[in-house]
Formats: sequence, structure tokens, C-alpha cells
Amino acid sequence: MRAAWTLSLLFVLAGLRPAVAEDSPAPEPPTMGSVLAATTAADWQAVDADDLLVMTVNGKQVLIELADDFAPRHADNIRKLATQHYFDGLKIMRVQENYVVQWGDPAEEETARRPLGEAAAKLPAEFDRAWGTLPFAAIPDRDAYADQTGFTHGFPVGRDAQAERGWLLHCYAMVGAGRGNEADSSNGSELYVVSGHSPRHLDRNITLVGRVIEGMEALTVLPRGTGPLGFYELPEQYVPITSVRLASTLPEAERPRRERLRTESPAFARLIEARRHRMEPWFIHPVGRIEVCNVPIPVRTPQ
Amino acid sequence: MRAAWTLSLLFVLAGLRPAVAEDSPAPEPPTMGSVLAATTAADWQAVDADDLLVMTVNGKQVLIELADDFAPRHADNIRKLATQHYFDGLKIMRVQENYVVQWGDPAEEETARRPLGEAAAKLPAEFDRAWGTLPFAAIPDRDAYADQTGFTHGFPVGRDAQAERGWLLHCYAMVGAGRGNEADSSNGSELYVVSGHSPRHLDRNITLVGRVIEGMEALTVLPRGTGPLGFYELPEQYVPITSVRLASTLPEAERPRRERLRTESPAFARLIEARRHRMEPWFIHPVGRIEVCNVPIPVRTPQ
Repeated sequence: MRAAWTLSLLFVLAGLRPAVAEDSPAPEPPTMGSVLAATTAADWQAVDADDLLVMTVNGKQVLIELADDFAPRHADNIRKLATQHYFDGLKIMRVQENYVVQWGDPAEEETARRPLGEAAAKLPAEFDRAWGTLPFAAIPDRDAYADQTGFTHGFPVGRDAQAERGWLLHCYAMVGAGRGNEADSSNGSELYVVSGHSPRHLDRNITLVGRVIEGMEALTVLPRGTGPLGFYELPEQYVPITSVRLASTLPEAERPRRERLRTESPAFARLIEARRHRMEPWFIHPVGRIEVCNVPIPVRTPQ
Repeated sequence: MRAAWTLSLLFVLAGLRPAVAEDSPAPEPPTMGSVLAATTAADWQAVDADDLLVMTVNGKQVLIELADDFAPRHADNIRKLATQHYFDGLKIMRVQENYVVQWGDPAEEETARRPLGEAAAKLPAEFDRAWGTLPFAAIPDRDAYADQTGFTHGFPVGRDAQAERGWLLHCYAMVGAGRGNEADSSNGSELYVVSGHSPRHLDRNITLVGRVIEGMEALTVLPRGTGPLGFYELPEQYVPITSVRLASTLPEAERPRRERLRTESPAFARLIEARRHRMEPWFIHPVGRIEVCNVPIPVRTPQ
């Protein structure tokens, strides 16, 4: 059956239960769809307008949530830059296949660069932090890079229980602050987003500042740079950034509003289990494991 | 130093030694660049023209190496389809952000579909195989999904030493054969390539048939489908496949020739170590680990 094949193939590749099995008398095993359908308002967290950057590129909106728990100083600096409209008219300079999309001020000469205004030119590195009282939704399975992985307030994190330290992970869609060889050489004016397989070797080597929660495709469809490391070779190839705004500085009517499934909620714990144990009829090998960057973090627009 | 910062940032994000450190008196630690510079002809393997598919889309070439060791029957069927020019004029129907690009015959009705000619309509699943005498370049670090991971003849693989079974892994750029709920419902006429973070939960659930060794960006820059699971909603959105040819059926002068670093070579073992231990001055946390899908498989065009 071509129709059934195609249908099941689609559902399969998204890990949802194929419609072709709907008439099965057996109770449905949990899936992402059924877990989300059973959520209540309390399972969802409104993204704070003070943590939400609205980046406009080619008429499309990219929404970035800042990670105050792990990079408070970089987040504050980026808020200052956005409030000053620092990024407006700056450029996407680099689009490297299966790696990163990077933007900032392309001027090589210090003197030619846009002034940072109220924002700091250098910040201490925020590669990791004392764990303290942060919540932790743990992944029970092995990870190549960290002894423990899981989620904290909507972000993928690594944890060292002995040292009681925690850090953000370079999963797809995570946003970081470019730096030079000095740990304190980043300030949030030059940013990159992970656009491919997660380059986890960058964890704890560079300050991650947030995550794109919507609109990645506005960046990932851009032409790849043909220069070394995916940099555009000619200034006319740069992709202009129309604007970057902090949502809380926008008029009420213009603020995008989004909700994230609380990673501290029982619903998210059920989602992790539904994704670890793929019970859909399509699955032949049960899997029974998951890697942190393969866990989706559901985001919705409130009605 | 803006210039130095930018320079080191670029090199950094590619894991190469920043040029700014060139004048250091200390011996350079191995990097991908230095390991490749030290290779000899014996470290490189010419990709067999009978294993090389040349797919042309929007005037760009996508090169796919077939994985005879793990999917010999699917590889043979795909050779038959390509030799019959089966794929010419068929469509890319699905481009799902951070997941897969998928192509084949969009016709829903069996009767409306292009005949498979010499090729089989169904094949037994080739999800894994008895390990036998295959070579194995092992990754020493943990993996979320497999007890052992590494490389065999240029492909990322998982291994179960007790069961003496091996299988290909869903790393970025791996190509698979779509199937329905029945394990034996794939035939290689509908294919997908992994375009984002590796969906390793698909390992051993669907037959992987090869790997894109060049030209991924011809597929990953395509507009994302706006229908469920990234399918294009309108036939006019389909991206036509100009042609798919088996390189060995092309006139000598038109055959693309590529070489892969032998994953069985000492040079590849050195490359894995250079990527596990990031000694470049930029790195502050030494890493000391790697995940299989983060190991590059170098490909070059012979002079």
C-alpha cells in the first residue's frame, strides 16, 4: 500500500504513532503526541519577555531564549546591546554546513566597529557554574561527553555531581558567544547558533547564552559560505540582520508570546520516557535509550 | 585585537590551530590539519565507481557512497534503479528541519507510480549483520545508543561484541531506505538523508544504504516543507531530481573521482586521537572524549 507506506513512513520518521495503527484494540503506548495532549496549563512555562530576543532576518522571525541561570552576565550584556539596537543592520557572516551560523559586526578594524555603548567589551567566562539549587531533569542513559546530562529550566545541561558544577550543552539550536583565545574575550556582540550535529567538544570551552526556540530555518536555509570555515567571501554575500529586539521592549501588541513545556514537570519526565522507549508499531528494535540532544523541548503559542 | 579575535574564533570553531599561535616555540600538538598533511597515498582509498552515486539537483552534484558491507541487497537494487535512470525527474518531497531530506516517487497511487523495472519491489531488512571479519576502528568513549562504536570501511558503525553483530549509524549525511511498518517493505526507491543532529533511535530500525560524501549543502539549503513532518504541501513545491547515475556507468571523462581516508589506517587512528584531545591553544577544557558522529571522515579529490 503506497498510501499507507508513505503515511507510516512519515509518522515513523517523526516518531509518532502511525495512523494506520489507530484501529488497533490494544491501548496506545505513550508518544510525544499523547504526552502533550495530556498536559495541563501548569505543565507549561511562559517564556519571560525579558529573556526573549526577537531577531528578524529576511522578513522571518528567530526567537532566542536567554539562559540567565548559566550565563547571567552575557545575558545582561546582550539585553543592553539589543535595547540599544546594536545588532540592527549587522551581518550574518558565516554559514558553515553542519556546524554553525554566526553573526555580528564584520568590520575587521577595531576603529571601524560599531560602539558597544552601555555594554561591556569583555566579560568573565561563564562556561559552567556551581550547581547550587538548580532543578535537574536527568537523562538516565550514557553520554559521550558528560557524566550526567539532563535539563534545567528548558535548557540541555551537563552535570558533574562530585564537583557540583553544571553547564549548558552544545545541542542543535543552542546559541553561544564567540571568543578569542582568552577565556574572557567574549561579550555577546558576536553570536553563533549550532545548526547541525551537536559539537559537544565546545562544551565548557565557550559561553552558551541561550537557545533558538523558534525560527531556526530562517538561518539554516541561508547559502553556505564558500570561504574557509563557511565565511562569506564577499561583503555583498553577508546577510543583513534587520533587527534584534528584547521582547519586553516591544509594544505589548507586538510581543511574541511563547510557552515551553516545563522541563521540571512530570509531563516532561513522561516525554523523556516516551522518547527513550519507542513503542510505535514501526519500531522493531525498541531502542530503550536516548541522548540528551535528541530530546525535543516542546514550545507552543498560547491561545 | 579584533583581527586576531576573528581569526582565532574561526579556527577555533573548526578545531584547527589558530594562526596566531604559529610563532610558539613549542612543538605543535596534532590537529586534523597536521594529521592529514602527514598522510601518504597508502592512507587513502579510491571510492569505487560501482559504489558511487552521482545525484544532480538544481545543477549541483551530490555524491553518495553505497555501503556494500552492510546493505548489499539494497545497494544492488539502487544500482539497478540508477542504471535504469529510475530517479531522473522524480522529486524531493520532504525537507524537515534538523531531521531528514527525502526523495522518491511522489505518486500516492500504486498504479500511478514509476515501474521499478529490474529492481525488486521488496527486500529483506538489512538492519544489522554478523560481524564476521570486518575491520573496526574503535572509538574508546561511551555512546548513548551502542555498546561499541567506530568505523568500518569509511562508515560509522555500532557493534555488539557479545552477539557479534554490527550496524550502520544514523550520523549526519547517512542515507537510508524508507520503509513502512513491515521490516521488508523497503527497496531503495525512496531514500532519505540525515540532515541534522543524528537520530540514532533509528539505528537497527531501518536500512541505511550509504553516505553522502560530498554535496550535502545542495540538499540542506532547500526550503523546508510546511506540511506535517516537513513534506511539501503542493506538487509545485517539489524539487526535481535531474538525474541519479552510478559513476561506473558514466563515460570515463565524466566520472567524479574521490578518495576517502582509510578508516583502517594509522592516520585515521591519529585523527581520532587528535579530535578526542583538543590541544589547540583555544581549548580551555581539554575534552578528552569524542562521540562517533563528531569524527570527520576526510574525502579528497585526487590530483
